Amino acid sequence: MAQVIIGHPAVRTDAVEKVTGAALYAADLDFPGMLCGKASRSPYPHARILSIDVQAARRVPGVVAIATGRDLDALGGEAVKDMPFLAMDRVRYVGEPVAAVAALDEQTAEEAVKLIKVEYEELPAVFDPVSAAQNDAPLIHENSEGYEHIGAVKILPHSNIVNFSEEKQGDVARGFAESDYVFEDTFTSHTAHHGQIEPHCAIAQWGADGKLTLWTPNDGPHRLRKDLSDALKMPLTQIRVIVPYLGGGFGGKGGLKVEPIAIALARKAPRRPVRVVLSREEVFATTLVRHAVVVKIKTGVKADGTLMAREVIGYWDTGAYAEKGPTVSMQATATAAGPYRIPNIHLVGYCVYTNKAIAGAYRGYGTPQVTWAYESQMDIIAKRLNLDPVEFRLKNIVHEGDALPTGQPGHSIGMEECLWRVAAELKWNEPCKPGHGKGIAITSKNTKTPSGSAAYVAFNQDGTANVLTSTVEIGQGAKTIFAQIAAEELGIPLEKISVSQADTDTTPFDSSTTSSRSTFHMGNAVKAASADVKQQIISLAALTLGCKPEDLVANGGAIDFAADPGHQIPFQSILKKCYGAGGSVLGRGFYYPATEKDSGMWSAPSVFWMYGAQGVEVEVDRETGQVRVLKLVAAHDVGKAINPATCAGQIEGGAVHGMSIALFEQVLMDQGRITNANFHDYKLATPMDMPEVVSIIVEAPHRDGPYGAKGVGEPVLSPTAAAIANAVERATGIRIYDLPLTPERVFSAIEKSDRVGVK
Amino acid sequence: MAQVIIGHPAVRTDAVEKVTGAALYAADLDFPGMLCGKASRSPYPHARILSIDVQAARRVPGVVAIATGRDLDALGGEAVKDMPFLAMDRVRYVGEPVAAVAALDEQTAEEAVKLIKVEYEELPAVFDPVSAAQNDAPLIHENSEGYEHIGAVKILPHSNIVNFSEEKQGDVARGFAESDYVFEDTFTSHTAHHGQIEPHCAIAQWGADGKLTLWTPNDGPHRLRKDLSDALKMPLTQIRVIVPYLGGGFGGKGGLKVEPIAIALARKAPRRPVRVVLSREEVFATTLVRHAVVVKIKTGVKADGTLMAREVIGYWDTGAYAEKGPTVSMQATATAAGPYRIPNIHLVGYCVYTNKAIAGAYRGYGTPQVTWAYESQMDIIAKRLNLDPVEFRLKNIVHEGDALPTGQPGHSIGMEECLWRVAAELKWNEPCKPGHGKGIAITSKNTKTPSGSAAYVAFNQDGTANVLTSTVEIGQGAKTIFAQIAAEELGIPLEKISVSQADTDTTPFDSSTTSSRSTFHMGNAVKAASADVKQQIISLAALTLGCKPEDLVANGGAIDFAADPGHQIPFQSILKKCYGAGGSVLGRGFYYPATEKDSGMWSAPSVFWMYGAQGVEVEVDRETGQVRVLKLVAAHDVGKAINPATCAGQIEGGAVHGMSIALFEQVLMDQGRITNANFHDYKLATPMDMPEVVSIIVEAPHRDGPYGAKGVGEPVLSPTAAAIANAVERATGIRIYDLPLTPERVFSAIEKSDRVGVK
Repeated sequence: MAQVIIGHPAVRTDAVEKVTGAALYAADLDFPGMLCGKASRSPYPHARILSIDVQAARRVPGVVAIATGRDLDALGGEAVKDMPFLAMDRVRYVGEPVAAVAALDEQTAEEAVKLIKVEYEELPAVFDPVSAAQNDAPLIHENSEGYEHIGAVKILPHSNIVNFSEEKQGDVARGFAESDYVFEDTFTSHTAHHGQIEPHCAIAQWGADGKLTLWTPNDGPHRLRKDLSDALKMPLTQIRVIVPYLGGGFGGKGGLKVEPIAIALARKAPRRPVRVVLSREEVFATTLVRHAVVVKIKTGVKADGTLMAREVIGYWDTGAYAEKGPTVSMQATATAAGPYRIPNIHLVGYCVYTNKAIAGAYRGYGTPQVTWAYESQMDIIAKRLNLDPVEFRLKNIVHEGDALPTGQPGHSIGMEECLWRVAAELKWNEPCKPGHGKGIAITSKNTKTPSGSAAYVAFNQDGTANVLTSTVEIGQGAKTIFAQIAAEELGIPLEKISVSQADTDTTPFDSSTTSSRSTFHMGNAVKAASADVKQQIISLAALTLGCKPEDLVANGGAIDFAADPGHQIPFQSILKKCYGAGGSVLGRGFYYPATEKDSGMWSAPSVFWMYGAQGVEVEVDRETGQVRVLKLVAAHDVGKAINPATCAGQIEGGAVHGMSIALFEQVLMDQGRITNANFHDYKLATPMDMPEVVSIIVEAPHRDGPYGAKGVGEPVLSPTAAAIANAVERATGIRIYDLPLTPERVFSAIEKSDRVGVK
Repeated sequence: MAQVIIGHPAVRTDAVEKVTGAALYAADLDFPGMLCGKASRSPYPHARILSIDVQAARRVPGVVAIATGRDLDALGGEAVKDMPFLAMDRVRYVGEPVAAVAALDEQTAEEAVKLIKVEYEELPAVFDPVSAAQNDAPLIHENSEGYEHIGAVKILPHSNIVNFSEEKQGDVARGFAESDYVFEDTFTSHTAHHGQIEPHCAIAQWGADGKLTLWTPNDGPHRLRKDLSDALKMPLTQIRVIVPYLGGGFGGKGGLKVEPIAIALARKAPRRPVRVVLSREEVFATTLVRHAVVVKIKTGVKADGTLMAREVIGYWDTGAYAEKGPTVSMQATATAAGPYRIPNIHLVGYCVYTNKAIAGAYRGYGTPQVTWAYESQMDIIAKRLNLDPVEFRLKNIVHEGDALPTGQPGHSIGMEECLWRVAAELKWNEPCKPGHGKGIAITSKNTKTPSGSAAYVAFNQDGTANVLTSTVEIGQGAKTIFAQIAAEELGIPLEKISVSQADTDTTPFDSSTTSSRSTFHMGNAVKAASADVKQQIISLAALTLGCKPEDLVANGGAIDFAADPGHQIPFQSILKKCYGAGGSVLGRGFYYPATEKDSGMWSAPSVFWMYGAQGVEVEVDRETGQVRVLKLVAAHDVGKAINPATCAGQIEGGAVHGMSIALFEQVLMDQGRITNANFHDYKLATPMDMPEVVSIIVEAPHRDGPYGAKGVGEPVLSPTAAAIANAVERATGIRIYDLPLTPERVFSAIEKSDRVGVK
């Protein structure tokens, strides 16, 4: 009896461990002789460091090591190597680590840190990305063009612009000229925080043999190993990154966050593990935030609603260090025209240093911010042209074979089905109660391309198998997906597959657990490694049976012998026959998308695109400005849902995440200092705010995806804000251009429109 | 410039870690919430358990869990599944664990263990293997023939004989009839202990998901996983064995030693790690000892010294449980005729249960005990026939192509060179001072066959590589050997290779780190995995260069393009060209010797044989009986010394180990109770006893060994005792038949011979 594995909503393989609290996170780990580390941090957004006096701190009993920036003269950063492990000659944001103490316990470390005296000379700071992009702005990095950086990044010299990106198709000037209407709007998106429940924690240990071991909930263990190898000039094999369970990432747990502090201290306390756990305030202020963005969008359209041209210029407020800002702005810029057929486009992104918390990867990688802009404007246009928003979108959306903004022909495009199904579920054509409104928005997202993933699969004597992968289980259910793929390919039950956690010394290369890429890339690698196992077992069986491998077929974890139908030999019997108790079959798989010759990462067309539509019904309280989402419908094209249960979980969680950012979440800053760096003042959606959520899985299979699968983790967040704003507009007539849609903002807009008599 | 890697005495890759004390052993590990376990142990050699009362122990504050045998109704054992994790209805040796306590600290556990009341009914015990083998002996296992066991083991029903093994060639009766002289002697070898410095320690944790994780210095992590899977009826993937550094094994750290106690307790304390560290006394009494053996040897010889027939009957005192006793006796029996051409042989081994400490694997796997017998007798024969001992041996030793006792034709036989070189180094033909004597002895050893080893090799972007292997670094230098093999095969420097430690969840299958098999078997697997990497890189290069793979040659970590000589492309450049920063090449290798069809493990001819000769000069003090070894020369045929430095270390260490057992070490027992279970009363050779040691590496390359290598770890111990006894005889005229050669024994023999006027 063939079991259904692919497409079956299997229970997550890590469910019991997580539900019972048995899963160990980094801060749960304890090692003999472990020290606790704490950092002394800059109180200024921009200042020169004149001196650091650690004498008083050193005298505190229990202090074992103190580190300052000069101890590790290293610059880190994935795209641009601009960030010292600890500040060297200057600080660029409030909270930047300047020195650190490792002590026998956390209290002692905290006490000692307070005794570190740093003399600063304040420098002029800049907080707004548009101002910071001007020629006369104070330079935050004086020689940024001298930094090492990846080829795809274009740093503009003598400026705060750490990346300029541009995509062009056709001729926008002509497109606008040929349009009947041209719309120009500016939308802003605010600074948000990832709000992971697990705070950042890293344990670093510098072995007597010079090997550096890190235990850290990092979403890219091999990328981290490479970053550290570059920064510290150490071979890859001398750095080991072990990833325990990760308690919420959303993009905020990649690269160098708390790791540099732990490493700097470990270097000064050889052989002793040094653990640094960030406080909630430190997590907010010093790890990562989502880019605030100013998006100027100009769209030309024919009177019949045909999109003719679109120009988008984004100013990405990337904070004090580049981190993934350059690639966020680059990837988002490529998606900034939306999932539409537009013959003439010009998309520009400026990624701009400011003296603020570092912005970088965040679920959606910039796509939510540009979607906010283009999908808000789509409704403005539809209203002006008196078109139904759904009809207007349907008229313009991309289909199979259409040219995408990257120039590549589109493939695996479930856009239309997503839109239809949301409209249907939302009963789009039925009117709302007064004070209610329905809104809709769509999105598309690319994935970083090209990037590689590798996997090992070991088939055991008892018919079980161990899959080795460096994909990090960040709550997305990757372990379950890979178990399903290996089980399907080998034809054995899911329970027989064990999937590793990531450890760069043992689990093979993976680019990173980001960009919604794991199911597609690592899924293909696991599939290939499993196929390699299967092929070897067939060869062994052929030897044993004295026939040709071509005469045999693997089926349900057993070999079918064409010459003797009905006679099945289980894989493990073949192993036993060949090797007694001494056997095993190892497989290896590597997936790297076929791309154009000499294309570097980030610069190539995306190996797949994901599409989605969301719709909401909202109720707006005109007395308070409060927006309440009553129903939230999200349809996403995932190619193929390997596990519909975890897919639906991603869609539901992502849409609610998007709603939370649209309505509640915002990082508030005063002169670069975050003033609400805690979960009391930084408001996340709670169960009290929960609408009825309907998730819809759309499957437009991808020819290169495992079983047709693409990804789902990121786009599920993108259209929500615009859908809500569009619904608010339809409930109230009020168009909001700035996120979030707080009661204050909505109320003041209503009040203003009432005053000027709009509507 | 080609570097020399194979044959180069590379510094051990783990040298710094070990010398600085940074290497972590199991007892160094600490986990949050870890409990300490202690066992209540039998005071009787043989008794029925009437009741176990744990109430008082349970009331001790800090006690978390108590386990008895019935909690885990499981039988373990590699060859014969006869051993309960904790005793169930009866105990069979002094020190057998009966119940165990896990508490918050070790003191509490000890205190509670003392409060466990066990009511016993004593049963008749038997301590001598020859008596125990008789039909009327008390049965130690009442239904041993009902135990599950591997096919090669032959349990004699209704007896204490847990294995009967036999090898036959020719017709010994006729051989003896055709001989001019027939010699019959009985030699005994005593109980010895492994004397590892690191005590046995296991940490067990039973996860919320039902997965059992063990941290234990076990020399066969995959074998342990399999044993536990069988005993506990759990899939292999639900058991994880992690091996930290291992501080001395010598065979005593395989199988189930301290592990069952930790597992039984972990089962009763779910999710909490439970650590059990044995005291030195427990290590002596309850882990493993070397078999005491009674060897009856009968040899027929022509007057010219031609060996005609040999019959050897060994009684192997295997203690209370089978452990590896059956396979020790089996493998040693196959070697018991010695490395000689003898047309008629009959070799018999009885492995016999006694109510004593469990005997099992010990460096040499029984070969030292049979070598002691046959090499002592060879000198008796030579003396009687008035032949020079070296000449007598040279006349009879095996050469390439000769039939071995297993029936297989001999291959890779460096026997003659070993013997010549020892004789030369010892200046054999020059006379000694009075009271001095020179002695010589030779040996040969097989390896368990067939058995498998698997390895992964990952080639990294920076030209380094990670080798994954489950071979355990037990001090033999395996990590360095595999690094050398991978470096040689890939053509890159040794420093670029990192070799894993064993972890059954990630490092692939290996039979065990025993039987001198690792260099040969795992070496071949690592070589194959490296070749797999190289071949893939060549294919990538061919794609990149637009040529055929056949046109390219890998050489020194780079690709030579036949069409463009002199132009070399390093491997990592090819990776970079193909995959940017996103690449890796994975290799896999599996080695399993080609053997006769349907042969099970242990029953097949050995895939390789090792040969060695040792010679000593001793000084015997006739007043005290003290034997002092002045010079110890050891020549061993290793096939090929991949690392001459670690090879020489094995030879030197092994020969001194052999001397220590011959002269000093012995486990003393009184009614089954060990009376010298500590390093004060159990005497190991110290630097004060150290002779001049000369190690000689002989290389008779093996056609299937990596670069010709075989093994070296075990036979280095075998000939020493006989060489010393032969030297003592030549110094004093006294023939000693029983080990060890303590001053008491030698003095009393001298005194007796003086009395009866011999010589």
